[in-house]
Amino acid sequence: MISDRSDLPHSAGLPLVLVVNGPNLNLLGTREPGTYGTETLADVEQRITVAATRLAVRTEFVQSNHEGVLIDAIHAARGRASGIIINAGAFTHTSVALRDAIAAVALPMVEVHLTNVHAREAFRHHSYLSDLAEAVIVGAGPLGYVFALELLAGRTAAHEATSA
Amino acid sequence: MISDRSDLPHSAGLPLVLVVNGPNLNLLGTREPGTYGTETLADVEQRITVAATRLAVRTEFVQSNHEGVLIDAIHAARGRASGIIINAGAFTHTSVALRDAIAAVALPMVEVHLTNVHAREAFRHHSYLSDLAEAVIVGAGPLGYVFALELLAGRTAAHEATSA
Amino acid sequence: MISDRSDLPHSAGLPLVLVVNGPNLNLLGTREPGTYGTETLADVEQRITVAATRLAVRTEFVQSNHEGVLIDAIHAARGRASGIIINAGAFTHTSVALRDAIAAVALPMVEVHLTNVHAREAFRHHSYLSDLAEAVIVGAGPLGYVFALELLAGRTAAHEATSA
Amino acid sequence: MISDRSDLPHSAGLPLVLVVNGPNLNLLGTREPGTYGTETLADVEQRITVAATRLAVRTEFVQSNHEGVLIDAIHAARGRASGIIINAGAFTHTSVALRDAIAAVALPMVEVHLTNVHAREAFRHHSYLSDLAEAVIVGAGPLGYVFALELLAGRTAAHEATSA
Amino acid sequence: MISDRSDLPHSAGLPLVLVVNGPNLNLLGTREPGTYGTETLADVEQRITVAATRLAVRTEFVQSNHEGVLIDAIHAARGRASGIIINAGAFTHTSVALRDAIAAVALPMVEVHLTNVHAREAFRHHSYLSDLAEAVIVGAGPLGYVFALELLAGRTAAHEATSA
Amino acid sequence: MISDRSDLPHSAGLPLVLVVNGPNLNLLGTREPGTYGTETLADVEQRITVAATRLAVRTEFVQSNHEGVLIDAIHAARGRASGIIINAGAFTHTSVALRDAIAAVALPMVEVHLTNVHAREAFRHHSYLSDLAEAVIVGAGPLGYVFALELLAGRTAAHEATSA
Amino acid sequence: MISDRSDLPHSAGLPLVLVVNGPNLNLLGTREPGTYGTETLADVEQRITVAATRLAVRTEFVQSNHEGVLIDAIHAARGRASGIIINAGAFTHTSVALRDAIAAVALPMVEVHLTNVHAREAFRHHSYLSDLAEAVIVGAGPLGYVFALELLAGRTAAHEATSA
Amino acid sequence: MISDRSDLPHSAGLPLVLVVNGPNLNLLGTREPGTYGTETLADVEQRITVAATRLAVRTEFVQSNHEGVLIDAIHAARGRASGIIINAGAFTHTSVALRDAIAAVALPMVEVHLTNVHAREAFRHHSYLSDLAEAVIVGAGPLGYVFALELLAGRTAAHEATSA
Amino acid sequence: MISDRSDLPHSAGLPLVLVVNGPNLNLLGTREPGTYGTETLADVEQRITVAATRLAVRTEFVQSNHEGVLIDAIHAARGRASGIIINAGAFTHTSVALRDAIAAVALPMVEVHLTNVHAREAFRHHSYLSDLAEAVIVGAGPLGYVFALELLAGRTAAHEATSA
Amino acid sequence: MISDRSDLPHSAGLPLVLVVNGPNLNLLGTREPGTYGTETLADVEQRITVAATRLAVRTEFVQSNHEGVLIDAIHAARGRASGIIINAGAFTHTSVALRDAIAAVALPMVEVHLTNVHAREAFRHHSYLSDLAEAVIVGAGPLGYVFALELLAGRTAAHEATSA
Amino acid sequence: MISDRSDLPHSAGLPLVLVVNGPNLNLLGTREPGTYGTETLADVEQRITVAATRLAVRTEFVQSNHEGVLIDAIHAARGRASGIIINAGAFTHTSVALRDAIAAVALPMVEVHLTNVHAREAFRHHSYLSDLAEAVIVGAGPLGYVFALELLAGRTAAHEATSA
Amino acid sequence: MISDRSDLPHSAGLPLVLVVNGPNLNLLGTREPGTYGTETLADVEQRITVAATRLAVRTEFVQSNHEGVLIDAIHAARGRASGIIINAGAFTHTSVALRDAIAAVALPMVEVHLTNVHAREAFRHHSYLSDLAEAVIVGAGPLGYVFALELLAGRTAAHEATSA
Repeated sequence: MISDRSDLPHSAGLPLVLVVNGPNLNLLGTREPGTYGTETLADVEQRITVAATRLAVRTEFVQSNHEGVLIDAIHAARGRASGIIINAGAFTHTSVALRDAIAAVALPMVEVHLTNVHAREAFRHHSYLSDLAEAVIVGAGPLGYVFALELLAGRTAAHEATSA
Repeated sequence: MISDRSDLPHSAGLPLVLVVNGPNLNLLGTREPGTYGTETLADVEQRITVAATRLAVRTEFVQSNHEGVLIDAIHAARGRASGIIINAGAFTHTSVALRDAIAAVALPMVEVHLTNVHAREAFRHHSYLSDLAEAVIVGAGPLGYVFALELLAGRTAAHEATSA
Repeated sequence: MISDRSDLPHSAGLPLVLVVNGPNLNLLGTREPGTYGTETLADVEQRITVAATRLAVRTEFVQSNHEGVLIDAIHAARGRASGIIINAGAFTHTSVALRDAIAAVALPMVEVHLTNVHAREAFRHHSYLSDLAEAVIVGAGPLGYVFALELLAGRTAAHEATSA
Repeated sequence: MISDRSDLPHSAGLPLVLVVNGPNLNLLGTREPGTYGTETLADVEQRITVAATRLAVRTEFVQSNHEGVLIDAIHAARGRASGIIINAGAFTHTSVALRDAIAAVALPMVEVHLTNVHAREAFRHHSYLSDLAEAVIVGAGPLGYVFALELLAGRTAAHEATSA
Repeated sequence: MISDRSDLPHSAGLPLVLVVNGPNLNLLGTREPGTYGTETLADVEQRITVAATRLAVRTEFVQSNHEGVLIDAIHAARGRASGIIINAGAFTHTSVALRDAIAAVALPMVEVHLTNVHAREAFRHHSYLSDLAEAVIVGAGPLGYVFALELLAGRTAAHEATSA
Repeated sequence: MISDRSDLPHSAGLPLVLVVNGPNLNLLGTREPGTYGTETLADVEQRITVAATRLAVRTEFVQSNHEGVLIDAIHAARGRASGIIINAGAFTHTSVALRDAIAAVALPMVEVHLTNVHAREAFRHHSYLSDLAEAVIVGAGPLGYVFALELLAGRTAAHEATSA
Repeated sequence: MISDRSDLPHSAGLPLVLVVNGPNLNLLGTREPGTYGTETLADVEQRITVAATRLAVRTEFVQSNHEGVLIDAIHAARGRASGIIINAGAFTHTSVALRDAIAAVALPMVEVHLTNVHAREAFRHHSYLSDLAEAVIVGAGPLGYVFALELLAGRTAAHEATSA
Repeated sequence: MISDRSDLPHSAGLPLVLVVNGPNLNLLGTREPGTYGTETLADVEQRITVAATRLAVRTEFVQSNHEGVLIDAIHAARGRASGIIINAGAFTHTSVALRDAIAAVALPMVEVHLTNVHAREAFRHHSYLSDLAEAVIVGAGPLGYVFALELLAGRTAAHEATSA
Repeated sequence: MISDRSDLPHSAGLPLVLVVNGPNLNLLGTREPGTYGTETLADVEQRITVAATRLAVRTEFVQSNHEGVLIDAIHAARGRASGIIINAGAFTHTSVALRDAIAAVALPMVEVHLTNVHAREAFRHHSYLSDLAEAVIVGAGPLGYVFALELLAGRTAAHEATSA
Repeated sequence: MISDRSDLPHSAGLPLVLVVNGPNLNLLGTREPGTYGTETLADVEQRITVAATRLAVRTEFVQSNHEGVLIDAIHAARGRASGIIINAGAFTHTSVALRDAIAAVALPMVEVHLTNVHAREAFRHHSYLSDLAEAVIVGAGPLGYVFALELLAGRTAAHEATSA
Repeated sequence: MISDRSDLPHSAGLPLVLVVNGPNLNLLGTREPGTYGTETLADVEQRITVAATRLAVRTEFVQSNHEGVLIDAIHAARGRASGIIINAGAFTHTSVALRDAIAAVALPMVEVHLTNVHAREAFRHHSYLSDLAEAVIVGAGPLGYVFALELLAGRTAAHEATSA
Repeated sequence: MISDRSDLPHSAGLPLVLVVNGPNLNLLGTREPGTYGTETLADVEQRITVAATRLAVRTEFVQSNHEGVLIDAIHAARGRASGIIINAGAFTHTSVALRDAIAAVALPMVEVHLTNVHAREAFRHHSYLSDLAEAVIVGAGPLGYVFALELLAGRTAAHEATSA
């Protein structure tokens, strides 16, 4: 379920960003295209990979409909990744466990939603993740992931510049 | 975990209804019989199968205590089933992810609860599924599933009659 | 306003079920057919009567836009009926008096709504009757009454079998 | 529905108190005697009549399951009665119209409930009548009406003494 | 209870507006004149009748303290009236049944209150009718009915002009 | 602070009722007479004593502005008194400790308030005592205590008659 | 920004009504005509001016998107105007300062909204102005201003008649 | 207050994006740099201008502490601009008028906040603008404006491609 | 516990102000000096005494951790004092009894808190005393008592001047 | 709108306090004198000026009905003033922008209200400014400003003494 | 009321733990034994004393129905005790003053309740003490105090080991 | 994932306690040691095992980040274990399914949290498990599990002693 599409030989030394997608996002592109667009999750991940190359970071992808799988993946990023991009889907609104996993690994995190959750049902207006996030980007479609990657890449670079 | 008890040779062309049971329903018949009755889940599924034969529909059953398993099963019903009967148990009140899965596959759905949830704790009075349902049947015991099947069978039939 | 359509000579000894319909249901079939269908209240009552014959129970029908008339009818069922099916319409959400009437006569009751009230305005999500009900069936259209009758008939039969 | 049980020849000049009982109170003594006692409404009214004689007031009684009938009766008391005792039953918690009727006739009113509403469901804790009342007496059973009559009789007497 | 004060021979072809007044409004002019003014309901209806003549519409009047009577009257307006003016009094704040009746007949409706309900108790700030109304006029006293009639007359005229 | 005004020689065998008055009630008759009347607490206690004699019960009185003193007095009533009348004043709305004391001694209790608390500030509408009470009497002035005593005396008598 | 369109020579002695329009109302007729109609603000003001002539009052108009400008205009009306008609647009729901300005000048005020705010978003259901208003007229379109003017003109006339 | 920093000769035909900054953002870079960073508003606008050149769009900037000035600027964008980027600062949480202005001009809008408002005081968690926005970007610092511009530029391009 | 530090021979005729300090204020100066400062309660009372001499008023001081003691002291001030300064500490937020005591003695009262309660926990934002107060001064440290004394002294003087 | 009434030659080196008055306070002394007193704003400012001389501080005054003007004035105080006294009037309860302005300039601030806001409407009980304030003084009338000045003068002096 | 049952000669140097029991706990063992068990408070204190000997700590006990007595006792522990065990009974839910006393003495505190408060009335679910506690132990009966003592003894020991 | 560390030969006949740890607790000792301490989960389980030996009970351990795994483990304990100790981590606050699992197996359960949840975010103050628990122990660190084991061991022993 976890695929590391950037681990080319020469990318080994690059900072790693984990891209987490939550429940039902496996249906992307095939479900309610009027709302979610026609790009599949693979398309989106491809688009992120292209950006990663440009930004000199590596990415790993995980999508699951199982909250536990997502938590395990976040735990596994500890000590390996330097940032997390997460679109937790419906778990955004219900999962304190996911929140705690992110707090536990203490990595910079950017929260992304494809659609503008503020224009949808009231129960989508609260996120258990947002106050832990560096940034929150909603409604920007697949571009949202790319923006998130730019942010994390920039902050990693800034951090390295500072501590160098 | 998914068993298709109606796939007899001659039933292949019949419309399929997925019957989803959520957490703790595997204990049916052995847990608090005063509240939930003495029929086991197998008994209930048998009862539904009998009704399915009468109504000329096929059924598939899934029960799991794992939210992700239920979501995966609902996804898998896309393009195969023509309706869903769901007793999501406790997930009824907490799982936006399950709700989104049902919305994503866009199949007619009937929500069933064995007991009258309105006569129980306040946190059982809200369902994340009900407003997506064709119908909601609570407190009718195992008969509730049969009523749900009759509804879905009738609407499928009506639909076919209309579109024929 | 109360009509007993089952009192055929040979039905005298059968258990009686009172079917109560609340305000505005007299307009059934002629009002917002997109929402409520095209069956008139007479059609629905006819459909229930047919089922009653099959289930060996008698039925009496009352519909009124006057809360007091419904309460009086419920009182009058005491000692005569063995169950009540009620679609209290808008009184569902506002009438403690109706609730008290049902509690007072202490008969098994099934609550029915033609439409799925959970998919409508927030003020239709609470019912003063539900926690007193044996079962609640919403969104099943006229079939909901038939399901309710099957439930009450079954429980009456079960009860007689037990106490015989 | 309105009966004046005190209109003996010599009582014509006595002040009149209207005793209003709301929905389901016609079942008193026959419904849930564990909760409401075994006295019928007639018994209670007889008990009040005895007290009225002792207190030198006349009484009129009205009970109805129809909110409109109660409102009409209260209107009719204007200019005739010098006080109202009301046990509005379930209307206590839902009827702004009854409240407005009492405010409109502007007569001293005492609110009575046979049982202690504060020890029952939450929706019985609010009364639309209480802030208009001279006094509220709950849980005293039929004696509550007698206490109410003593209060109104006393205040009427005091008022006459003052204005004489 | 329903009086048609405009049915003069030559008015038969004019559009009909039903004017509905709810509980306690029969006491108008005699109850709390400081709040409600000294015009009786008959005076107000007379004033409306005069305006109706000027505006070339017919009016019918109904007032009742019985919610069921009001619902029945609204039902009866279907197919006969082209608009409803309603001052539902206290039922404004409590009657979903009245709301449903108005929605069912689907006639243009204007809600009127003699007093400024927003300056009174909190429970008078919510109306079950307002979101169904064309317009809501509060605090304008008897003139409010006349304004409502002008609105309905104008829209009827506009509608006829358009569809002519 | 506790005075037993009924312990005449011949009253020793009579059932005892503890009359508890809470904070600020020592100022009765001298504080806001428009609201609380002109009878002092001594007057009220005298009035209760007279009624006690008529009803063949003994009374003990305690008033304090100290919550702890009231709790101690209630504890001390265990095994001696057969009922409690309490006007807890402001503690009514804030003291869970007083509530627990009453629950602990498990004596029949009637709650009394001189004024109609329902017509006062919102924070006076909730009582921590009411659901433990036999009856609640508000707005009846000093007569409220007498009514309470009649209730407790009657129930004690009834109880003795039953168990005799 | 303030234009006095009635100051004809002979109108100098007429009572003055200030007509205040709040933010975004300058776009009237050009913005969402489906919701707000096609009359521009100038059209509406012209319509009001015509009515003013008929009613023998003068009018002054102010519209601004700046809360402070509206407050200043209301202050300036003190001692000059005998009434205010205000459609405060969005400030209705958020501006305590505007409310205070109106309270400070203590002039009779009628609140007008072109659309039926009760049928729109929940945050438009509360007005900081309504409880200060003589009357509130919503959903009547431009006619609402005319009705408001009739009310204020009538009350001014009545007042003068009384005090003459 | 409005400066158009992109109006180079050859940029005249480019689509225009209005960049709106609300109250206190004039202090950027000099106020709480720990929270808001050290870039001044001029720096941020310069950064946006650079991005605009790359993206082939023109920009106009407005910043004001006066709500009315912002509303006027948004009105003025109608028919000239093809999108709005807005960081309304504190007005985000309080200004329905600003919301209405944006709705009135009906241009694609992206909402930006420099800091992560979800990690700040509760009153910053609600925005009156978000449900009207295409996208919402918070916590990305000055980059947030650039992301917003990319989104609007992309959608404008896509739109032109489609309609060409 | 009550000490009158101003009762010098020549001060006998001066107006008296009671200064009430509630629970835990006896620890002043020794508890959390970062929050409450290093002045002890004795220091603060000395500071008030000095001001009293300047302002020609007498003061009496009471501090207690016992709510009942404070209530008794307030009662005792009736007829003797012409004003009360109260820092009720935690009782501010919980004691209706203290509120009633202050209302009962009907003396001008100023509420003081050493710290700014609005910048502390939410449960310190509500005071049962504030709406009875002449003025409320929070966060001014010991000076707050002096300001309160100036206010009361001024109003007493003004009152005497008026009534002289 | 900003007047510096203390800039006498010899006062140039004195610490400056900005005194901000919000909407409608320009009407002081002429509006509802029963509530706000008869001193005009000029009188109050004169009273503050006198106190400033005594306390060796300079003052500047600003009053506006325009939120933006107040924000601009607060911004302008940065680097010039050593404290702010603010009576934000109605903006107290609605303006996050004003709050942010005060937080941005990070000067000691005292909040003043002439009347006791806690004894007025519920919407005046919350202040967006209070938790940023050094102290809050309500209900002290014009003296409140003087007390505020004494506090700020004292703290400035203390600070200088400490840092000297 | 305070008894030091551990002050044996050789225990003088041991750390002291104050054990505080609130209202109604003096009735332990004699009140509702089904809920609270049959051990008296003396039994419980004896059990704690035995554990204290084993754990090499001293204990002092205080129980009172008077909030002020408990506060005084907590104050007196300052500088003498190294920890507090408190079962504040009903004061848990209502006493901010007790909370402040504990915060003021700044000693490690463990909160204990004999019964599981979370399974009781809603008003027992909130504690004013819990967020100040080291640990909270509910439902463990008398063992809860022993667990609390072990915790405090262990932390004291750990602290001494660290600081030694 | 389930390891039975006590199943030594001679322990076979001992009562079994299942120790359940929820999401993120696998990171114990390595995550936020300032909050959660430095003991790993293995250390804690070792500590519990030692206590189990002393208390003559057996233990089984399960930890998972998957809600379904925990539910399955609890189901599997039915008929084998005599008690459950559960630290459900974040599921405490969100999982009705876990609650139902515990209710279904109907074993004595003690709820444990390492930290004091009452001193953390508001969403950690509610537990779906607490009202089902025998006892709840929070903030006691790893000792909390030992205390829980002592409680369950003691009650099992007591039960056996009683039923022996």
